[in-house]
Order: sequence, then C-alpha cells, then structure tokens
Amino acid sequence: MIAKSQARWTDDAARVLRVTKGFQLSDVDPDATPGYDGDKAAGKADLKSGLEQLAEYQERLYAASRGGTAKDAVLLVLQAMDSAGKGGVVRHVVGGVDPQGIQLAAFKAPTEEELAHDFLWRVEKRLPGAGLIGVFDRSHYEDVLIGRVRKLADAQEIERRYGAIVDFERRIADRGIRIIKVMLHISPEEQGERLMERLERPDKHWKYNPGDVDERARWSAYMDAYQTALTRTSTDEAPWYVVPANHKWYARLAVQELLLEALEGIDPQWPVAEFDVEAEKKRLKATL
Amino acid sequence: MIAKSQARWTDDAARVLRVTKGFQLSDVDPDATPGYDGDKAAGKADLKSGLEQLAEYQERLYAASRGGTAKDAVLLVLQAMDSAGKGGVVRHVVGGVDPQGIQLAAFKAPTEEELAHDFLWRVEKRLPGAGLIGVFDRSHYEDVLIGRVRKLADAQEIERRYGAIVDFERRIADRGIRIIKVMLHISPEEQGERLMERLERPDKHWKYNPGDVDERARWSAYMDAYQTALTRTSTDEAPWYVVPANHKWYARLAVQELLLEALEGIDPQWPVAEFDVEAEKKRLKATL
Repeated sequence: MIAKSQARWTDDAARVLRVTKGFQLSDVDPDATPGYDGDKAAGKADLKSGLEQLAEYQERLYAASRGGTAKDAVLLVLQAMDSAGKGGVVRHVVGGVDPQGIQLAAFKAPTEEELAHDFLWRVEKRLPGAGLIGVFDRSHYEDVLIGRVRKLADAQEIERRYGAIVDFERRIADRGIRIIKVMLHISPEEQGERLMERLERPDKHWKYNPGDVDERARWSAYMDAYQTALTRTSTDEAPWYVVPANHKWYARLAVQELLLEALEGIDPQWPVAEFDVEAEKKRLKATL
Repeated sequence: MIAKSQARWTDDAARVLRVTKGFQLSDVDPDATPGYDGDKAAGKADLKSGLEQLAEYQERLYAASRGGTAKDAVLLVLQAMDSAGKGGVVRHVVGGVDPQGIQLAAFKAPTEEELAHDFLWRVEKRLPGAGLIGVFDRSHYEDVLIGRVRKLADAQEIERRYGAIVDFERRIADRGIRIIKVMLHISPEEQGERLMERLERPDKHWKYNPGDVDERARWSAYMDAYQTALTRTSTDEAPWYVVPANHKWYARLAVQELLLEALEGIDPQWPVAEFDVEAEKKRLKATL
C-alpha cells in the first residue's frame, strides 16, 4: 500500500461528502471545506504530494490489468454548473497522472446520431478499459439535468432514465469499474464573479458564452434537478459526492482525495511475471 | 508570442535533427545531444520551464480553434525500438499539458476489423481535431517497419504504402495539422541494459515481453526499414526528426523543443469575442 500523506484530512472524504439518505443539497455550504483541517497553503501542498501518490496508484492499476487477471478501472464523473471548476480539476488533479493511464471524455450537446440512440449509447463507448482512470467531463447526468430543466425529453422519459442509470452503473461496477460521481457545488454569487472575470479578461473571452447568463437564470430549477438526480442515483455501487467548490483549492484536493481513497480500496499490485525471469535474463545476456 | 527560455539551444532543434536528402541513420550517434549546449541538470531545468510554455501554447491553440476560424492542430508521431523512451516522452513532455488539449492514440497490433481495411483507416479516426495536440504512440509507420521486417505484407504492398503515407500526410497537413514525426534512436547496447533493468526489478516485470528479445535479434533489419521509411517519407509537410535517445533527458528535451518550435510557428492567438462584451457585462450584472 502507498503511504498516505494527507494527515490534514480529519475524516474520509468519501464519508463526509457522500450523498446518503435524507440528503438536502440546500444544506451544503459551497464555502465549506468539510473533513479538511488546513488552509489554502496547506491544501496546495497536500495536492502536490497527492499527485505523486495518484501517479503511482495509476501505474499499478495499469500494470495489474496488463498482468492479465485484474479488471479494475476507475471512473470519475464530473458534473457542475458552469464555471464551477471541472476544467481545473481535470488540469490540476487528473493532469498529474501519466496521460497513458487516463481516458478523458467530454460530453457536449448530443449529435443527431447520438439522439437516434438511447442516451446511454454514447456513454458506454467512452467507458475506461481495465487499468485506466476514466474521466467524464459532463456525462449521462446531463440527460436528467439540462434534459429536465429545458424539457428536452418528456416527463415519462426523464423518469425512466433514473432507473436506467442505476441499472447501467450497477452493471459496469460489477464488471470492475469503481465509479466516483462528483458534483462541484458553487454558489450563484461565486458563479457571477467567475463569469464576470471571464468578461473582464480578453484571454478568457473564449470561455464565455452568452448562453451562460440564460442558464444562470434557471439556477433554482437546476438545483431541483440535481437534488432529484443525486438522491435517486446515489447507490453503494456508484455513490454521489457533493464537493463544496467556492474554494478551488479545496475542490481539487477533495476530488484528488476521493480518487486516492478509491484506489487505496482497490489496492492494485504489481503483477507477477508470467515468464521465467532467470531464463529470460540468460536469453537477453546472450545478445549483449 | 511566448518568450523562449531555452537559451541553451545553439540551433533550432528542427534544423539539426531533421531528416533531409542524403540522410544516413547509421551516421547518427545515439549518445549525442545535438544543438544543445547543456548537461543533464541544465536539460532537466529547461524541460521544466518548457512545460509552462507548452501548456500556454496549447491553451492558445485550443482557444483559437474555439473562436471559430483557426483549424490548426499538432500531431506528434513517436516511433522507436522497444524501451527507447516513447512512454517517458508521453509522461514527461506531453504530461505537462492540460489533458483536455491532448489526444493520445497508442497503436497496437491491428485487430481483425482493422486488417479488413486499408492500413490508414484506423489512423484517420485518431487524428487530432482543431485545437488539439495529437500524440501517436506508434503509428501507420508500423506498417512499413514491423510490416516489412516480419513480412506481414508482400513487397508490392509495402512499396505502395510509402506513397500512400506521403499523400495522406500532405492532405491532413493541408487541412491544418502540423505534423512532427520523431524516431527516438537508441543503440542496441543501451536497449540491452534497459531490458535487463526490467528483468531485474519486479515492479518492471510487467513492461517486459519475451518477444522483445526476438525483435532485438532483428535489429539491423529494423534499421534498414527505418532508413527507407525515414528517407522516403520525410517531406516538407511532414518531416522526420531523428532524436538521439541514449540520454533520456536529451530525448525528452528535444521532443519538447520540436513541439515548442512548431507551436511558435503556428503562433496561436486568443480569439476576439464574437459577442458584445459590454452588453454581456450589463446582462450579467443584472443577475448579481
């Protein structure tokens, strides 16, 4: 097992952030830093040391899958309102891992071909294979979030999707995918400031979309849709975690910690050689 | 333009490493560090500062493509004998860039479905879209390297492929992909040591394959196949670079420098906003 350095975590992130029975999104303070007993400077230092652990776990996960028998993979699902920090998590948490071990999928508005299939069709195709850490930047949850708020499907179809998601996630978990679903939770005030910064800096204009302000006007409808999605699809096989994200440093650290805890649970081992090591040494020596 | 910090490069890496008329692979010393006037410590420091430049260039490249008009992308093709350091380049050079800006494709032995198509079929599907840096870990060149050495196709078909590759690469370059093809060049002695290290360390056993020793016995046939491929397919649109790779630090630094020079040539700019910035500020303010 890889030594854990995040001594400033006073509790498992997975425990304090998890959506369980009775969960109310409106009770979560986006400014809080639950389970972590450190400030921004400490958080940044811990993020840095965690990167090395994550990189080593990932290499072991990958190696174990090459050994033939292990089928473990990890899937990090990221959902959030605009500007909540998904991109920063990808850059600063996932970015510390060998790109060869990452399978990143960003889900945009579905294409015509995708719309001609069930909403899980395009998701299935982007799942991580054994040994990989998959990252979904948005996901099938869009189909019960924007899908519900903007009425992109009728109520009966939206209703069908919650059950379909639970079944789908159970199946892929049974096949070996450890699923970690994260909602990065910011306040509308924080979002307002972040969008304004994008407007004030010419090098950030490309990140701004006039539609962002329209979506912002539907904030409470989105929170309702999240509340329903979170409580109806947080299962033992695929739990939801709500990560307060007004402090970017905390959100990144917490997602990293959730990944580390999941990998610690898998505890991937270097595989045993399937060849005769001494015989191979001799064969190789003969060529030197 | 982003300031260039690699003052220890005495010449453009693209100039000193490029395969041009009269090139002989056997003239390249795998121990050399052409164009760079620094030692290992300096090289590691320059690699680190180059990471930030590369990350900024990549973000600009991506932003420019979102602005609507720019179609630029970069494609780094990595070819090498086993253990020459492709993985290290991906980890230490490409790994410094935001994963959202990278499209990595590792080409293994072709599947039955792939074999039922032209050899470029699977390659086309993995090309980077505008704004991305694509990285090929092995590529369509396997089809004229191992394909030739192991006689996986007849001589006429191999012959056809050189021309097909030149045409294919010209087309995708015309569409906006800046192609950088790199052969990492190690000596057979260095490979022997690296393979032995994999055998000596249990945490490296998973990287070793008994077939590696068999391929090693075909070293000179591989060098002949490289010589032919390099000279027949190094074009203005898609030049080959041979990077001496016995020193890992040099190989990584040189590939990074080739990427930086290519991006400097593209010189991607932050796109101009397609919306009325002041009007958007007002709309947003009304929601605060």
